[in-house]
Amino acid sequence: MDSKTLILSTVFALASFSSIVLAYDPRPLQDFCVADLISTVRINGLPCLDPATVKADDFFFRGLAQPGNTSNPAGAAVTPVGVSQIPGLNTLGLAIARLDYVEGGFFPPHYHPRGSEIHTVLEGSMEVGFVTSAPGFKFYSKVLEKGDVFVVPVGLVHYQRNVGAGKTVSIATFNSQNPGNSVIPNALFGSNPDIDSDYLAKSFALDKETVERLQAVF
Amino acid sequence: MDSKTLILSTVFALASFSSIVLAYDPRPLQDFCVADLISTVRINGLPCLDPATVKADDFFFRGLAQPGNTSNPAGAAVTPVGVSQIPGLNTLGLAIARLDYVEGGFFPPHYHPRGSEIHTVLEGSMEVGFVTSAPGFKFYSKVLEKGDVFVVPVGLVHYQRNVGAGKTVSIATFNSQNPGNSVIPNALFGSNPDIDSDYLAKSFALDKETVERLQAVF
Amino acid sequence: MDSKTLILSTVFALASFSSIVLAYDPRPLQDFCVADLISTVRINGLPCLDPATVKADDFFFRGLAQPGNTSNPAGAAVTPVGVSQIPGLNTLGLAIARLDYVEGGFFPPHYHPRGSEIHTVLEGSMEVGFVTSAPGFKFYSKVLEKGDVFVVPVGLVHYQRNVGAGKTVSIATFNSQNPGNSVIPNALFGSNPDIDSDYLAKSFALDKETVERLQAVF
Amino acid sequence: MDSKTLILSTVFALASFSSIVLAYDPRPLQDFCVADLISTVRINGLPCLDPATVKADDFFFRGLAQPGNTSNPAGAAVTPVGVSQIPGLNTLGLAIARLDYVEGGFFPPHYHPRGSEIHTVLEGSMEVGFVTSAPGFKFYSKVLEKGDVFVVPVGLVHYQRNVGAGKTVSIATFNSQNPGNSVIPNALFGSNPDIDSDYLAKSFALDKETVERLQAVF
Amino acid sequence: MDSKTLILSTVFALASFSSIVLAYDPRPLQDFCVADLISTVRINGLPCLDPATVKADDFFFRGLAQPGNTSNPAGAAVTPVGVSQIPGLNTLGLAIARLDYVEGGFFPPHYHPRGSEIHTVLEGSMEVGFVTSAPGFKFYSKVLEKGDVFVVPVGLVHYQRNVGAGKTVSIATFNSQNPGNSVIPNALFGSNPDIDSDYLAKSFALDKETVERLQAVF
Amino acid sequence: MDSKTLILSTVFALASFSSIVLAYDPRPLQDFCVADLISTVRINGLPCLDPATVKADDFFFRGLAQPGNTSNPAGAAVTPVGVSQIPGLNTLGLAIARLDYVEGGFFPPHYHPRGSEIHTVLEGSMEVGFVTSAPGFKFYSKVLEKGDVFVVPVGLVHYQRNVGAGKTVSIATFNSQNPGNSVIPNALFGSNPDIDSDYLAKSFALDKETVERLQAVF
Repeated sequence: MDSKTLILSTVFALASFSSIVLAYDPRPLQDFCVADLISTVRINGLPCLDPATVKADDFFFRGLAQPGNTSNPAGAAVTPVGVSQIPGLNTLGLAIARLDYVEGGFFPPHYHPRGSEIHTVLEGSMEVGFVTSAPGFKFYSKVLEKGDVFVVPVGLVHYQRNVGAGKTVSIATFNSQNPGNSVIPNALFGSNPDIDSDYLAKSFALDKETVERLQAVF
Repeated sequence: MDSKTLILSTVFALASFSSIVLAYDPRPLQDFCVADLISTVRINGLPCLDPATVKADDFFFRGLAQPGNTSNPAGAAVTPVGVSQIPGLNTLGLAIARLDYVEGGFFPPHYHPRGSEIHTVLEGSMEVGFVTSAPGFKFYSKVLEKGDVFVVPVGLVHYQRNVGAGKTVSIATFNSQNPGNSVIPNALFGSNPDIDSDYLAKSFALDKETVERLQAVF
Repeated sequence: MDSKTLILSTVFALASFSSIVLAYDPRPLQDFCVADLISTVRINGLPCLDPATVKADDFFFRGLAQPGNTSNPAGAAVTPVGVSQIPGLNTLGLAIARLDYVEGGFFPPHYHPRGSEIHTVLEGSMEVGFVTSAPGFKFYSKVLEKGDVFVVPVGLVHYQRNVGAGKTVSIATFNSQNPGNSVIPNALFGSNPDIDSDYLAKSFALDKETVERLQAVF
Repeated sequence: MDSKTLILSTVFALASFSSIVLAYDPRPLQDFCVADLISTVRINGLPCLDPATVKADDFFFRGLAQPGNTSNPAGAAVTPVGVSQIPGLNTLGLAIARLDYVEGGFFPPHYHPRGSEIHTVLEGSMEVGFVTSAPGFKFYSKVLEKGDVFVVPVGLVHYQRNVGAGKTVSIATFNSQNPGNSVIPNALFGSNPDIDSDYLAKSFALDKETVERLQAVF
Repeated sequence: MDSKTLILSTVFALASFSSIVLAYDPRPLQDFCVADLISTVRINGLPCLDPATVKADDFFFRGLAQPGNTSNPAGAAVTPVGVSQIPGLNTLGLAIARLDYVEGGFFPPHYHPRGSEIHTVLEGSMEVGFVTSAPGFKFYSKVLEKGDVFVVPVGLVHYQRNVGAGKTVSIATFNSQNPGNSVIPNALFGSNPDIDSDYLAKSFALDKETVERLQAVF
Repeated sequence: MDSKTLILSTVFALASFSSIVLAYDPRPLQDFCVADLISTVRINGLPCLDPATVKADDFFFRGLAQPGNTSNPAGAAVTPVGVSQIPGLNTLGLAIARLDYVEGGFFPPHYHPRGSEIHTVLEGSMEVGFVTSAPGFKFYSKVLEKGDVFVVPVGLVHYQRNVGAGKTVSIATFNSQNPGNSVIPNALFGSNPDIDSDYLAKSFALDKETVERLQAVF
């Protein structure tokens, strides 16, 4: 596995929305339930801080003015703002992210198991496309320019790539504080441990050597 | 009612997210249910188009690159992108909007009965604040600069105002395709028909003349 | 701030449904989950007691036969029965309250961010009205007599006042164990800390002195 | 089947909350969705009227001041106020009812498949009890006096009976616009068509003749 | 109470889906939330294990190949597979069970307060029937053979019985990790403590002696 | 594209749960809402039949006793039982399917965007595995024998394959009447129209010729 593919694998693997494992999206049942990120109580989502200790900064995040680090083979970066970044998002069912793409930069096919997504282009030119589920597998895509908006329904395979000259910046918004991100090349060929290569070869009509090379890459 | 207050009333009244009456936010139960905006069937939300006729443009909106019209006394404008603008948002539980503020521009106190909101500043400097419900009425506020993010929990009274030199632009995102917007000065003093001025005077510890003046303004 | 306005402020501020900060309204997922009101675990709602220790009294409240204390400038009182009063309501999505009004008594404009409300008049004559959200701000109102029922949709600004001779008693029911109560005069002019008076003056087309007087009252 | 048992059967059979078959309890997704009770469109719940035609009376019901007709063997009556009575309740997830009991009056064992219930006694003395599901079958009961409140969790078998001298009046509230009412004697012995009497005899450890007598009664 | 009726009572009482009291069915908000079955934190459902300790066996159950113990008067047995058996089911809203019936075996009338149910016959011949709620009390039933499928809507009274020669085996599936099981003969006549026999006699048009005999049986 | 790959493509493409585009999974709000499969009203889910016309057969399906047609390169078949097969499933949130595998038969990697899944092996020996989302991509797998049960959380990539000698039969159950099936090889390489092969090549670290060959296969 050479350094380029190592980084390729890494950028995909890190294209995750959230680094925290537990979070949740119920209807809020009090004014707020700011996440207690250090509690050891584990529930479907996150427990709350004592509301008496909550302050305005718990609803705040600074950092979307700076581009993410796109120095990787995919030339793309995610700067997520979910419950890990804003504990006040806990129970509120929302998250956003800044996406940066160098010229030619892209995100591999992926889907969010727990959220629909709106893409808004701030700068540049971006293609976005999604595929419906069986049996249609219909592919809908659009090239977006600055100020354009496109929605991807929850759970459908989709991708984005920079198709303009120069960099692209967009904002992604989700109706979940932790939408999840299943990055398909990584889930298939970069899982821990690996899925059996014979099985993958048959499923994808690839030879086993190709599958094993992919398993080294991702 | 002079022209300035007429316009003031108008900008608040129009600070509504959506001009369509029926829309909905359930969990989607098929890949998509693109809104049929001309159907006469009325349900909790909107009926769907025949999926065979759906095209990529049904998930697309162009227009957030341009500022809204801030030529009004409040010096602020909303450009909403909800199910009326993107019929593909139907059932997906998401909407966004572009907000523009001239220097000194502001939105009056309001709340969204059906959605939490994330504010992201693209340009300028904006104060945002919200107040919790009874009995605390705690006020949390923050001045946001470019790239800053702040979340307002669903249903709480809040406001934004430009506190910098020059204009401010921000993106608002909601976890509802039709979050609703109850603009408080308009709901109280600009309803159709008017609420009894004696009642309002007592409730707000104002004299009746002041209330009737406000009823003329809003 | 004189004593009358102090009390006026107080009765509005106390017109809150619940004195407990955390509570919730999910679909119950076992026969019951009686709230453990002294647990230090904080979640979206309340943790449960060991079901082996639950007794019939956990589902019971005594006290709606007595009128609330209406000795205040608004001449109105709420006696709430939510999860703080009946821990067995936890997870069941219901609450009620007794409302008392002296002749001329009233509740100021308010809304419940997490619940629709049914009003049932037991005695007297009560006006109830609500206002829809932008852009319509339509005002619907009705005078209720004994045995009349009226529903207020979730999240809309509304009020009630006694419009008869003599006292009025009503029952309010909510589809939430903690519907919340955002009392508008208090949220706007009685928050902690205060909202900037310049901003409020501009938003409400009032002069700053009036706003500051209101901030002293509420 | 003599007249007494005919009436006994009838009062139980009519102890239903709603005479309309379709209704629903989702989260409302616009300010209101007043039920169109004459539409031929059938959905999970009820379609809505054109909001432009909605009036205050759509949120109103008159009639809880009068007692229901208790001239039946059970000596009990339900006056329901659900979406059939108040079309504005559509999508709002609430309903109430007035319950009347003569001295000795009662409701047979029943449960509401789609709603929890709060009982509030307005007059008299009423016993209420519920039984948990398997394997505990724990029975919780309480005698309520005027002003007492008791909650019955959704879906559990329960009953009420007047245990005082003189009549009893109570208000029942539900977190559903159509909670449903499965009256157990009627569901078991009064279904259309009848359940096989051999099966019922074995299930209830009764002889077949007794079962067939009950099938004639209910 | 003789041994036969003792056993009859017991088999009904044990016809419960789950022996754990707390469990829940929300929308999952992370990839998984495997139940921590020994935690002392009590919530609406079950708290989760540290995901780092989760293993494949937490999603696994072995044991549906063996028939349940049908050596009881009803000649029927349930082998449940819910969150108590597979902790990985926590938050996922699903459960199944194997049902065995000897020739003539049956389950008494019951309902599941928190789940719809699909019956699939693997072997034999089974009658299944359900009754709608008031005021219709309509009875729908069907005899299923091997490979037949039938659905019972959530919360409705239903039953199954073997109507073929030889044993019957079926799979029941629920959309809840803890659907609950209210077994009607046991809930009515076998509660702890007993419901007053006078009340039951009047409600079921039975004499008090019969009711007390049933209370001894169940 | 030779015949083998044509068929391979076809079996994957048809591995869809449902052939109907619109269906839904809300909480039911009346006893039942049997799908009207020929209505032209399109909603989030399906409209209902007049309940007066509903019969027991609307809740019934015959056909799981017969194996599906496994005469295809993957050697696997799905026999779905969802709302298209049982209209009475509409609004009830449940579906099942029979899965058949020849020796060596398999289903390619896929996920269900709208449902968790329980696998129960009736005959043979089956491996099932799933992969969590970013950044962990943890792979959990298990070999199931007759009577074994395994749950796959909603939205995660998973697969099944026959790893025994001889055929395998299993039952899959879902907590959705239309869980959807995104078959990954088909969504990526068999969409209509094709996704750009240059993009796919970069995303999967494959050369463009390989991608175009796959696009011919799927």
